[in-house]
Amino acid sequence: MKAYFGRRYTLSASHRLHTDALTAEENRAVYGKCNNPHGHGHNYVVEVLVGGEVGRETGMVLNMALLDEAVRGLVMDRFDHTNLNRDPYFKNRAPTTENLCKAVFELLDGSVEPARLAQVRVEETENNFFEYSGA
Amino acid sequence: MKAYFGRRYTLSASHRLHTDALTAEENRAVYGKCNNPHGHGHNYVVEVLVGGEVGRETGMVLNMALLDEAVRGLVMDRFDHTNLNRDPYFKNRAPTTENLCKAVFELLDGSVEPARLAQVRVEETENNFFEYSGA
Amino acid sequence: MKAYFGRRYTLSASHRLHTDALTAEENRAVYGKCNNPHGHGHNYVVEVLVGGEVGRETGMVLNMALLDEAVRGLVMDRFDHTNLNRDPYFKNRAPTTENLCKAVFELLDGSVEPARLAQVRVEETENNFFEYSGA
Amino acid sequence: MKAYFGRRYTLSASHRLHTDALTAEENRAVYGKCNNPHGHGHNYVVEVLVGGEVGRETGMVLNMALLDEAVRGLVMDRFDHTNLNRDPYFKNRAPTTENLCKAVFELLDGSVEPARLAQVRVEETENNFFEYSGA
Amino acid sequence: MKAYFGRRYTLSASHRLHTDALTAEENRAVYGKCNNPHGHGHNYVVEVLVGGEVGRETGMVLNMALLDEAVRGLVMDRFDHTNLNRDPYFKNRAPTTENLCKAVFELLDGSVEPARLAQVRVEETENNFFEYSGA
Amino acid sequence: MKAYFGRRYTLSASHRLHTDALTAEENRAVYGKCNNPHGHGHNYVVEVLVGGEVGRETGMVLNMALLDEAVRGLVMDRFDHTNLNRDPYFKNRAPTTENLCKAVFELLDGSVEPARLAQVRVEETENNFFEYSGA
Repeated sequence: MKAYFGRRYTLSASHRLHTDALTAEENRAVYGKCNNPHGHGHNYVVEVLVGGEVGRETGMVLNMALLDEAVRGLVMDRFDHTNLNRDPYFKNRAPTTENLCKAVFELLDGSVEPARLAQVRVEETENNFFEYSGA
Repeated sequence: MKAYFGRRYTLSASHRLHTDALTAEENRAVYGKCNNPHGHGHNYVVEVLVGGEVGRETGMVLNMALLDEAVRGLVMDRFDHTNLNRDPYFKNRAPTTENLCKAVFELLDGSVEPARLAQVRVEETENNFFEYSGA
Repeated sequence: MKAYFGRRYTLSASHRLHTDALTAEENRAVYGKCNNPHGHGHNYVVEVLVGGEVGRETGMVLNMALLDEAVRGLVMDRFDHTNLNRDPYFKNRAPTTENLCKAVFELLDGSVEPARLAQVRVEETENNFFEYSGA
Repeated sequence: MKAYFGRRYTLSASHRLHTDALTAEENRAVYGKCNNPHGHGHNYVVEVLVGGEVGRETGMVLNMALLDEAVRGLVMDRFDHTNLNRDPYFKNRAPTTENLCKAVFELLDGSVEPARLAQVRVEETENNFFEYSGA
Repeated sequence: MKAYFGRRYTLSASHRLHTDALTAEENRAVYGKCNNPHGHGHNYVVEVLVGGEVGRETGMVLNMALLDEAVRGLVMDRFDHTNLNRDPYFKNRAPTTENLCKAVFELLDGSVEPARLAQVRVEETENNFFEYSGA
Repeated sequence: MKAYFGRRYTLSASHRLHTDALTAEENRAVYGKCNNPHGHGHNYVVEVLVGGEVGRETGMVLNMALLDEAVRGLVMDRFDHTNLNRDPYFKNRAPTTENLCKAVFELLDGSVEPARLAQVRVEETENNFFEYSGA
């Protein structure tokens, strides 16, 4: 797989980093101000990368409209303008950006045919980002 | 005043657009998904612009360290990694970015001497921003 | 007017810089490679700035949905994914970015009430831009 | 190959997505507004990545001037400020950004010695991009 | 003057913030690590804004080629890839970005006819910038 | 290793490209204006990418505070606001960005446990960058 098509989406959400697996003090030590009680938020940039063949007729790896539809239905409608801590995916997982990145990958995997989902990248701020390409 | 010095800060916070002055239905109509019940969040970019004379000796309008100290003490410690709806400033005001922009201006005004606060600009997302330069 | 709300849109179009007021040679001298016969194109960034009062109840200068609707109806539907040279506005004007900027201002002026259109800025490339705030 | 040098160029061009292999109706369905009859345009960002050894004497993977010369002669002089549909490369291929990306790779391949062409990335807009690293 | 044309240039230079008007200790207090003995450097972004009428025939405020020529001849050839402290302009002035901004304004003023130089903006880093529009 | 965490730092430094392995004339031919006698400078963007498992309890690949501490202690304190030519690492190597990239990799390697250093990327300007992932 040598040709890739990437597309960038933005998603505004709030979260509070906290896990029941740790004590209040440990949570504070591990997550710092991200553990503040009432949460905070980000404009997450979600970049979806798919790979495949460049279609001989269409000249495309994947029709952009199809990818937009998959991302809207499976990711944006679920996470955009929400509080991540309320989502079932984060019921037993801290809503870190690593886990959000995995969530997006798992939700989109298998839904971008005939292309193949290659990687999901999530930028939490302009200075940090996460990438996941499957288990 | 012909010389200006501007500095850019980022601030992560959550908010829910909602005002008690409107009914639930009106809130939904006015604010759309920004009225979602559990809030969402942004990486706000706060740009502070001060004007003044370029000091003959120092060659500076205002020492950057002084501006950083004022912004940290008056703005960042208060709003960064918080839920804006919980702040007293927003007790009787919707936590829109217009109002956040005014709050930052009012908090910093008078604290950047010998320079003068000229404008505060807040970018809510990469596609919308607000500017305020005093009443 | 001390409070401003700005919003950024992108618009992909093609154009060829050429005016019937000049000879072929003069056109080439004035416009350089922008005068190449079959045109070229840009992702224009259009930034619309409106000013007004921050509404006491809503905390907004102008509802973003209203601005988006005006821009979509009056500007994007007309210019996005088109060849600017084919538009009536450019029938007797070279489709320079200065003129595109004026066109956008004239089309939007009066349609953003209760706010007032303050400025239109168009970035042609990441290295040049134009601003217009009315006659 | 563990050291890479990347360089970013911009190229303004127009195109119309259309292929003779499909009917007018199919073209419209597949390409949407990108099939508009008179074309539109983009500021393409072309990123060329080459890999190789860091020269012991020069401390460089490849002299930047050599890469600039290759890109200017083989890519920019051909595609910048043109209508892609008029280029022979796109005579039998839709001028999609996937195909532009492949064209740039094929044109540069073999011309960046002693380094090796590793990847070409083309951003069509700030929200979508394509990568190609050879057959 | 309601129409403006702006253009962005980049310039790599080194400097050391230090003034003979202050003692070594005062220099350290005022400039912090910018006073480190052997200097450091920046990619300065220089944005030149000119205002004027949009020419009826050309549709331009100022031909971009003329501005590029003025900036190259008067600013870039002088400051790009240099050590600012060695330039005569900074013989009796600390090479702060405020002063660099004034230098660029003074050097370009009067050389962009028929347009008028409106403002020079210099970004020292992505988080701070300076603007000057004349005495 | 399928999960990655990346973080972006900026570093202002000056350098002069010059190597004793070449004559003055060869230095000028190879490095062009980067060989100017008194140096110049850049705002380098240093992006550090680490890979590993997403911790079951913390939901993190690596605590951001630990990475910041390693980068500050090993890289920033050494290179930020300095003249790279004065650093012992560049005593026998030209201070090219390729070599700076290798220096950062070598300094950080082994200090980001339990994650593993995957790649260091250094952007010298907005138009060129370098990546290194170990020997």
